[in-house]
Amino acid sequence: MTPWKTELTPLSFLSRSAEVFPEKEALVYGDRSWTYAQLLAAAEERAHALRAAGIRPGDRVAYMLPNVPEMLISMYAVPLAGAVLVPVNTRLAPEEVRYICDHAQVSLLVVDTVHWPALTAVAPELETVRTIVLAEDPLHADQPVGRAHPAGTHVVTLEELLEGASADDSALVWAVDDEDATLSINYTSGTTGRPKGVEYSHRGAYLNSFSEIVHSGFGTDTAYLWTLPMFHCSGWCTGWAVAAAGGVQVCLREVRGPVIWDLIDRHGITHLNGAPTVVTTIMNAQEAHTLDHSLVVTTAAAPPSPAMLKRMNAMGFRIVHVYGLTETYGPYTVGQWQEEWAQLDDDARAAKQARQGVGMVTAERVRVVRTDTDGEELIDVPADASTMGEVVMRGNNVMKGYHRDPEATAKAFAGGWFHSGDLAVMHPDGYIELRDRAKDVVVSGGENISTIEVEQAISAHPDVLDVAVVGVPDAHWGERPKAFVVVADGAEITSEDILEFLRERLARYKNPRDVEFVPVLPKTSTGKIQKHGLREKEWSGHAARIQG
Amino acid sequence: MTPWKTELTPLSFLSRSAEVFPEKEALVYGDRSWTYAQLLAAAEERAHALRAAGIRPGDRVAYMLPNVPEMLISMYAVPLAGAVLVPVNTRLAPEEVRYICDHAQVSLLVVDTVHWPALTAVAPELETVRTIVLAEDPLHADQPVGRAHPAGTHVVTLEELLEGASADDSALVWAVDDEDATLSINYTSGTTGRPKGVEYSHRGAYLNSFSEIVHSGFGTDTAYLWTLPMFHCSGWCTGWAVAAAGGVQVCLREVRGPVIWDLIDRHGITHLNGAPTVVTTIMNAQEAHTLDHSLVVTTAAAPPSPAMLKRMNAMGFRIVHVYGLTETYGPYTVGQWQEEWAQLDDDARAAKQARQGVGMVTAERVRVVRTDTDGEELIDVPADASTMGEVVMRGNNVMKGYHRDPEATAKAFAGGWFHSGDLAVMHPDGYIELRDRAKDVVVSGGENISTIEVEQAISAHPDVLDVAVVGVPDAHWGERPKAFVVVADGAEITSEDILEFLRERLARYKNPRDVEFVPVLPKTSTGKIQKHGLREKEWSGHAARIQG
Repeated sequence: MTPWKTELTPLSFLSRSAEVFPEKEALVYGDRSWTYAQLLAAAEERAHALRAAGIRPGDRVAYMLPNVPEMLISMYAVPLAGAVLVPVNTRLAPEEVRYICDHAQVSLLVVDTVHWPALTAVAPELETVRTIVLAEDPLHADQPVGRAHPAGTHVVTLEELLEGASADDSALVWAVDDEDATLSINYTSGTTGRPKGVEYSHRGAYLNSFSEIVHSGFGTDTAYLWTLPMFHCSGWCTGWAVAAAGGVQVCLREVRGPVIWDLIDRHGITHLNGAPTVVTTIMNAQEAHTLDHSLVVTTAAAPPSPAMLKRMNAMGFRIVHVYGLTETYGPYTVGQWQEEWAQLDDDARAAKQARQGVGMVTAERVRVVRTDTDGEELIDVPADASTMGEVVMRGNNVMKGYHRDPEATAKAFAGGWFHSGDLAVMHPDGYIELRDRAKDVVVSGGENISTIEVEQAISAHPDVLDVAVVGVPDAHWGERPKAFVVVADGAEITSEDILEFLRERLARYKNPRDVEFVPVLPKTSTGKIQKHGLREKEWSGHAARIQG
Repeated sequence: MTPWKTELTPLSFLSRSAEVFPEKEALVYGDRSWTYAQLLAAAEERAHALRAAGIRPGDRVAYMLPNVPEMLISMYAVPLAGAVLVPVNTRLAPEEVRYICDHAQVSLLVVDTVHWPALTAVAPELETVRTIVLAEDPLHADQPVGRAHPAGTHVVTLEELLEGASADDSALVWAVDDEDATLSINYTSGTTGRPKGVEYSHRGAYLNSFSEIVHSGFGTDTAYLWTLPMFHCSGWCTGWAVAAAGGVQVCLREVRGPVIWDLIDRHGITHLNGAPTVVTTIMNAQEAHTLDHSLVVTTAAAPPSPAMLKRMNAMGFRIVHVYGLTETYGPYTVGQWQEEWAQLDDDARAAKQARQGVGMVTAERVRVVRTDTDGEELIDVPADASTMGEVVMRGNNVMKGYHRDPEATAKAFAGGWFHSGDLAVMHPDGYIELRDRAKDVVVSGGENISTIEVEQAISAHPDVLDVAVVGVPDAHWGERPKAFVVVADGAEITSEDILEFLRERLARYKNPRDVEFVPVLPKTSTGKIQKHGLREKEWSGHAARIQG
């Protein structure tokens, strides 16, 4: 071991902060709180308990919990035990959970008692899981929970698991031998096909944490609220980044407006992350009010509308817009703020902020490319803000590959770059702007129409709260866009109002064929609109949609 | 090349900022300024010019310039050309410069026209230097400069060098093949023996930059003033860190009070670094006044006195106290601020801040050790704030080794840790506090006396501006400390006042035998007190000093 190199790992962030800030608050949940020394001790107790339960280096350990302290602690405890963390989306169907556990060859599964009853049916079928650990949320002990032990499963409570900790006297080392080793496997939501297991390395998570620190501005006075699911992209590495900065992390079980506002006020929250649905939840809460301090909201998937941005800025929020995928540890690009944007009018400024931006400080330059015929050479599209191409990324903020899927990995890395499947344009200033998922693009009369572009145009209407656009069958054009619109509280608006509003804002061929008003849009647990369902309904009875 | 790893290099910071902030001010000197795009272009022009001048990958290129833009540009241009940068202290004697150029086998030397006349005598003797480039400071073109071309030397002006740039059409890549490759060689000041060439890697400089960003708090709105010599520890990596953050760097040729205050006011300086002598210069300037914004001063070597700290805080300065050596890319530890210190009285708080602190966020935990008899096992001293041991460090913020000196490297890394040669105690809270350089300790009646401890006790006196303590001969005790004191402007004070002041603050055996008042203390160009000279005078005519 050379004295001038330490393998990079986010484990070092907690071990340092536990030494430097032992008595400083690290973690809060309800009335309970943990100092950094206590958080470290909790991780060590669990690491010993996992080893006592037979977990060996490289074994996979799955956690299926909401944003409770146990889930945050797992980000340290599992790698500290030498194992690989598999965070599981709490909204998955039992069959999906089974698939992930089997595919990742999980040895031990920790599951929230609230989610356990649904899993009892598949539990006996799990191929590699030897131990199931039921973790009860002390703040929700009054909820109906299951503790069934189906035949053929070894089920223990978290308390029972932890009792084993003292039996393990092996040494725990807050360091790793190889920074390229796999830290966690995060399964994609898999809207089509089976979910894929995205492998994160210790090095990648360490470096990505510094991008989070720089771009969200984490510091010792940070109070971070966990509105982003921890199971999603390992919580974008934020559980590691905030600990590196020495801030405090506030857990919450459910992302509901009243709870969020209570925590914002009680803990002086300075930062929170989340999908647009989180932003909407916060802004639509009855409790919403002007802040007495600045709060940075780092948001992905889609930017807030100009009206929303204006309202949020006035209330004390500062929006950081980022873009990435599970395959890029969460955010890869950031809509880096430019001083001169302050001089723009609201709409122009919002248009700048709506773009996905540039590679973060530890990321490489993001590219928008077309692929030549042999599929290997990637050619940058002109930076003309109009030529669409695929977003590709590479480097330290890109996954190692898909777990046990060399074929999908090779395909994703064709030409030496990770292919996002997202279509974007490159602006002359080097900022990318997403136009669509490749599979969501509407092909109308041979023209590609970006549903995101149409959605943004509609969301600029002050009476529109939320909007989704999908391609629907059209006898003449093949497809035409259709808009599903959620109207803001108290507003009254017609289809004609929307179409009239679009007339000067959008090329005619991009205009929706019709507008349907809906009370709410179907979304995934991570806040992405489920266009698939909307499309299904519209296409039923028609021939299969023709893809450009 | 795997698509999920990019070799770490600070080159990426400028290439990213030139893309993200092309029109943002990156560098200022006098009335001239460079945007990030222009700074990148300047580095590329010089890299081409170096290649055209015959510089090949791995060649050493030395720069001996004050803190002018050309020196900052060299931090990017030289590695971009594939070469290794050797920054040379502008205050070295010609013979020392010759030694460094020969030892590092420098191919090309860039020297300020003001420093050139002194070098003309040794220039013909340089063993490996093929080209000497004279760089004239446009802001000081009126100064007497030399342009002599001694026989046997190839001397060109910077303008002539740059004319060659267009002749080189090789591709420049803002990336490296190996993050462990040597980026720069920084020669130690070498108070005893020959200077040693400290090798920095691309990876180390990259990671250290993030510690600078986190602990000094650099961001896009940073205006950094170059009061720290760029040749010293590659300017603590700050020239890379501020570019990563997207801030602006303000150059100045000489660290004088009026110029500094003018630049602070003119550019709204938010950050500056420097040795205590820089702090003294700033605070003693006639122009000193309360700031209208906060200014972070990151200072090394020794902390300001309690009285100075109090005065500076009241004026708007915020002090970050760091400690390190050339061998640790500059700072390795930081006196990390703790919230509860705000409740302490001035003296108690200053005592906390005076400590060297804890490892930075990208550094490993710092240790204070004694070495057992076989010299290999390092044993931590108790964290009792009184047992002295040697400060040792390791990991990514430690040099690769001494250039062409495997013996010194092996000795420095004995037991797998870098030996600083500094003596310290470990406090119960994990903060180290320096007590002395091993060679500066005073051995009196068999007791080790830390001269730093005595200096700090004396500097707490409100009428003391600066102080140095060395061991002087004592017939009875072998040695006793003697203090050399610089009195604050306008104050009147006697030896008896000082000794009376120390009575309750310092153990009797540590009290100086006598106090000598001097107008100024001899210091190195990096602000360290030259105790050697003070000691020489006192020991002349005595037998060699006995070392404990």
